Amino acid sequence: MASGTPLPRPLRGIIPPLVTPLSDRHPEGTRLDAAGLERLVEHVLAGGVQGLFILGTTGEGPSLSYRLRCELIDRVCEQVAGRVPVLVGVSDTSLVESVNLAEHAADAGAQAVVLAPPYYYPVGQDELLGYVEHIAAELPLPVFLYNLPSHTKLSFAPDTLRRVIEIPNVVGLKDSSGDMIYFHEVQRLAEQRADWSLLVGPEELLAEAVLLGAHGGVSGGANLCPRLYVELYQAASRGDLTRVRELHARVMQIRQTIYSVAGHGAAGAPPQVVAGLKAALRCLGICDDFMAEPFHRLRDAERRLIENHLAELNLVGLWGLPASRLV
Amino acid sequence: MASGTPLPRPLRGIIPPLVTPLSDRHPEGTRLDAAGLERLVEHVLAGGVQGLFILGTTGEGPSLSYRLRCELIDRVCEQVAGRVPVLVGVSDTSLVESVNLAEHAADAGAQAVVLAPPYYYPVGQDELLGYVEHIAAELPLPVFLYNLPSHTKLSFAPDTLRRVIEIPNVVGLKDSSGDMIYFHEVQRLAEQRADWSLLVGPEELLAEAVLLGAHGGVSGGANLCPRLYVELYQAASRGDLTRVRELHARVMQIRQTIYSVAGHGAAGAPPQVVAGLKAALRCLGICDDFMAEPFHRLRDAERRLIENHLAELNLVGLWGLPASRLV
Amino acid sequence: MASGTPLPRPLRGIIPPLVTPLSDRHPEGTRLDAAGLERLVEHVLAGGVQGLFILGTTGEGPSLSYRLRCELIDRVCEQVAGRVPVLVGVSDTSLVESVNLAEHAADAGAQAVVLAPPYYYPVGQDELLGYVEHIAAELPLPVFLYNLPSHTKLSFAPDTLRRVIEIPNVVGLKDSSGDMIYFHEVQRLAEQRADWSLLVGPEELLAEAVLLGAHGGVSGGANLCPRLYVELYQAASRGDLTRVRELHARVMQIRQTIYSVAGHGAAGAPPQVVAGLKAALRCLGICDDFMAEPFHRLRDAERRLIENHLAELNLVGLWGLPASRLV
Amino acid sequence: MASGTPLPRPLRGIIPPLVTPLSDRHPEGTRLDAAGLERLVEHVLAGGVQGLFILGTTGEGPSLSYRLRCELIDRVCEQVAGRVPVLVGVSDTSLVESVNLAEHAADAGAQAVVLAPPYYYPVGQDELLGYVEHIAAELPLPVFLYNLPSHTKLSFAPDTLRRVIEIPNVVGLKDSSGDMIYFHEVQRLAEQRADWSLLVGPEELLAEAVLLGAHGGVSGGANLCPRLYVELYQAASRGDLTRVRELHARVMQIRQTIYSVAGHGAAGAPPQVVAGLKAALRCLGICDDFMAEPFHRLRDAERRLIENHLAELNLVGLWGLPASRLV
Repeated sequence: MASGTPLPRPLRGIIPPLVTPLSDRHPEGTRLDAAGLERLVEHVLAGGVQGLFILGTTGEGPSLSYRLRCELIDRVCEQVAGRVPVLVGVSDTSLVESVNLAEHAADAGAQAVVLAPPYYYPVGQDELLGYVEHIAAELPLPVFLYNLPSHTKLSFAPDTLRRVIEIPNVVGLKDSSGDMIYFHEVQRLAEQRADWSLLVGPEELLAEAVLLGAHGGVSGGANLCPRLYVELYQAASRGDLTRVRELHARVMQIRQTIYSVAGHGAAGAPPQVVAGLKAALRCLGICDDFMAEPFHRLRDAERRLIENHLAELNLVGLWGLPASRLV
Repeated sequence: MASGTPLPRPLRGIIPPLVTPLSDRHPEGTRLDAAGLERLVEHVLAGGVQGLFILGTTGEGPSLSYRLRCELIDRVCEQVAGRVPVLVGVSDTSLVESVNLAEHAADAGAQAVVLAPPYYYPVGQDELLGYVEHIAAELPLPVFLYNLPSHTKLSFAPDTLRRVIEIPNVVGLKDSSGDMIYFHEVQRLAEQRADWSLLVGPEELLAEAVLLGAHGGVSGGANLCPRLYVELYQAASRGDLTRVRELHARVMQIRQTIYSVAGHGAAGAPPQVVAGLKAALRCLGICDDFMAEPFHRLRDAERRLIENHLAELNLVGLWGLPASRLV
Repeated sequence: MASGTPLPRPLRGIIPPLVTPLSDRHPEGTRLDAAGLERLVEHVLAGGVQGLFILGTTGEGPSLSYRLRCELIDRVCEQVAGRVPVLVGVSDTSLVESVNLAEHAADAGAQAVVLAPPYYYPVGQDELLGYVEHIAAELPLPVFLYNLPSHTKLSFAPDTLRRVIEIPNVVGLKDSSGDMIYFHEVQRLAEQRADWSLLVGPEELLAEAVLLGAHGGVSGGANLCPRLYVELYQAASRGDLTRVRELHARVMQIRQTIYSVAGHGAAGAPPQVVAGLKAALRCLGICDDFMAEPFHRLRDAERRLIENHLAELNLVGLWGLPASRLV
Repeated sequence: MASGTPLPRPLRGIIPPLVTPLSDRHPEGTRLDAAGLERLVEHVLAGGVQGLFILGTTGEGPSLSYRLRCELIDRVCEQVAGRVPVLVGVSDTSLVESVNLAEHAADAGAQAVVLAPPYYYPVGQDELLGYVEHIAAELPLPVFLYNLPSHTKLSFAPDTLRRVIEIPNVVGLKDSSGDMIYFHEVQRLAEQRADWSLLVGPEELLAEAVLLGAHGGVSGGANLCPRLYVELYQAASRGDLTRVRELHARVMQIRQTIYSVAGHGAAGAPPQVVAGLKAALRCLGICDDFMAEPFHRLRDAERRLIENHLAELNLVGLWGLPASRLV
């Protein structure tokens, strides 16, 4: 898919929210781990994913400097080179900065942007609707909305979505609320736009979301083990319940191991998940595990727990992950 | 106070969180209302305030582009020209961007920065402590911490403050939690640093905070009627309870009138307050009332209510505000 | 199933949380609508449910006097006469009152009790564990725990459940949190007790819960249309995805119609749901629609909307509901 | 004040929320520590308080059986024998049980009841208003409303209070929200009823509330050291700021010592406070420290910390507390 290639509508399948490989080895501060990023992109694409989402919550987008965000967009778009669509997170508290970043993404050849509500002030639904209408008209790429009330303090209410869904270049919603009743309500609303894509955020809900009609998932675990999530998506799409239950149990195991090692923070909260994923990716020799402020990579003892978990889960053996290690 | 002039320690008195006069009359988008900004700064300084805080919550800081934020810093520092200290809000989800903005502020001649925790991810107290320690070492100016859990989802816990208070260039806390029990706890902690300043955010709590020992307040209403807050601060400082009660009642009236007109949003929430303040300032001919996305200026009917409230409160007569009107 | 007949372990299927038919026609205050209660019990049993749960949230348990709660237990147990197990809600802020009510339930021939955490004070997990251990030893019947943090402000944390699950007469959990990630975590914990039953509260989540292994659901809508929920349970149990999707869509329609009429309160919140169910049951001539304080029956105009919804959904035609009407 | 003696309107001063002395030494379960209760009542009255509030949050009201609540009402009313008004907490999830308890209180000679909103279901402001109007007509005693959203999930909104304040036998509000902006708003509303009493719950806010016009406080610490709170109230009433600051600092010390010992729970949350108060009262030989489920008395090591704190604070020497000890 070269720049300008249209986005599939609706977009279906697994679109990993890419972690951003970072390095602290440079004297002038945090840098992209450019070689790690290359390996990571190839690792994930090899797993059969249908897109990449960069600069999301899992990608530590809001923690990165704008310079670094632009560099990441450029590198990923160049390397993916149209093989799958690239979705770029442009959420910001400032509308102007969101538009600026979206324009950079369009120039770099990305296919879509992903937009959460502005997340500093308390915002009402009227203001949210006006904001989406206004910014959608300025954004140069199709927009996926991003529902994440745990971080933004605000959910897209069904009545707001009923109107947002009529905006032509809003092409879908990524729902990371974890609230499946809400998800089912949105599904019914979305039926009126055949080209709309409803994607589920938490990977622990991927099975049921797809069984009941979602188009796909933005599964953080697909950074580590993309084929697991792709196969779960496929099994759920074709209604193979036995396989779905088996793979769903695997997904729950990853949560209870890889995502539960970090010493503080709630199990399953993004910083915990990202710390676990980055540690595991480092164990596999894929990329560095440095994290942007205010978070920190796992300590050595914690990383050894991750290594043990990787061995017990037999991710390498079952899912064809690289066995070489940098540790 | 020229650039480089040291900040008074502790800083005392009323430090208004300046609203940012904006204009939408330019074809290329939102601009500073530069003439309105000049008038506003002079209006506020004439009221006897002891500092200015720009780019805070009331200043719509997080909603503005970085270009506009830098322009505002430059203009305010230049115009104030050392008459009072200028404090610059540099809160950001990205540590690097906070440091960048603080460096710009230092270069422009500001005296201090104001820093809230990064406000996108769920952050723990350990991470918060590490973050403050790390960024304080990189910031070129003294730092006031900014506690505003309604917006950042995170409070500086007393145990965290106990350690933060030992960092030399952290020189105070602005507490906008509205939780006076917390405030009194922090007061006791702060006693160990004679140069530390404890400032209260909500103006409705200014009377009691100063009566019980706070150093001052960051009162939004001082944009409109600076002398009221300055006199309330002074009356509370000298223990004149009769005068305190009288002025406190005035402050509550402003809340129940000017801050309660906007049609949606909770009374007293920042977007409501800013909309009311900007409308009142427009009525007085001081500056434009445009607001940055996702908020909007009051409608004509609402602004007429503001005009009526101004008349009933007799702010112009009692407090020497300008009577000329642009409306 | 006569008194003393053992409860099936695990309990499976649809166990409706019975609404409590009330009447305000008596001069001395609220009374049971005894005739309506008889009709309701027979209506629900005729739909093939596998148990009845009385005095839960849908049953307005906490709003009823103890005298009325005891009368309800007696009447329901007598009328059911062992045809299905009767589960009795005994949640209370006072442990002694919970035990008193459980003893009444045991004497009346009920098969189990359902217990939420005490819901007034902020309670920690340690205290919750101690509470469950203590009360379980005093309760004369098997216990289902009831997780409903929206009402009790407290969830049974997985680490607490890990220990609670070892208490012999705790035989299951009804999870009404709406949090399916939590639900899946509990499922994994519950695997170690083959006689444990994991039931899902919100009917909008019944499909996915059973598809992925839950034992059944406590579906409020089964008061109105029991066969719909029983068939959905059965379709999900046998993996008939096409039928599941069709019936799940019906369940969502009931939410968006019957449960969304009440003028205030969030759609889907218990008071809204109960008001809608009672109005619909009145339209069908099954029971009175009076509600205990602080809630109120729907107004006439709202009840006519319910009638229209019943007609549009064709619940009477499709699901064999009684067509006679008291309205 | 004999039964039937009218309540002072407005009620002013310190009205301690009495802890309920309990004992677990009886083989049949929790009992009142009747001798301890007598000593406690006399201890508190000797400190100059202007009323007693029993069965509140500090009194563990919702955790006690109804039989025990009635016994407590009887004993306290008999012993107080009209020396000060007795206010009885009757909050309940069931309106009928609240009325029943209020009738018992009236028969026993109490002067008023204290009523929080029903605290299980999510309740809207319309329903809350209807509930208060309805129950106020049925209650045989004057009513103080009780605002405690941390426990009831619901605050009396100013617009609701504006109407509630017109109900003749609603005679005041105890605000335990901790939100002083709300408190000041209510103060302005309450000005229209000269016989209305506005009392502040958290003792850490007593100083400022009374300085700015509140009628008094319901201060838990007055169980332990009644004269401290009475003197603080008096100093604030007469505007003696120096003395207010000194006594307020004492109150903060009690929070940071006595109320911060319990190993779990947030400092200052009611269970923590009650555990600390009961342990201190036991150290002074006043009453037993048993707590109703789900809470527990402090362990021995924690109680020794309480003893040390009592010595350091010199409460016995400064405030004439009994020095004898049961420990």
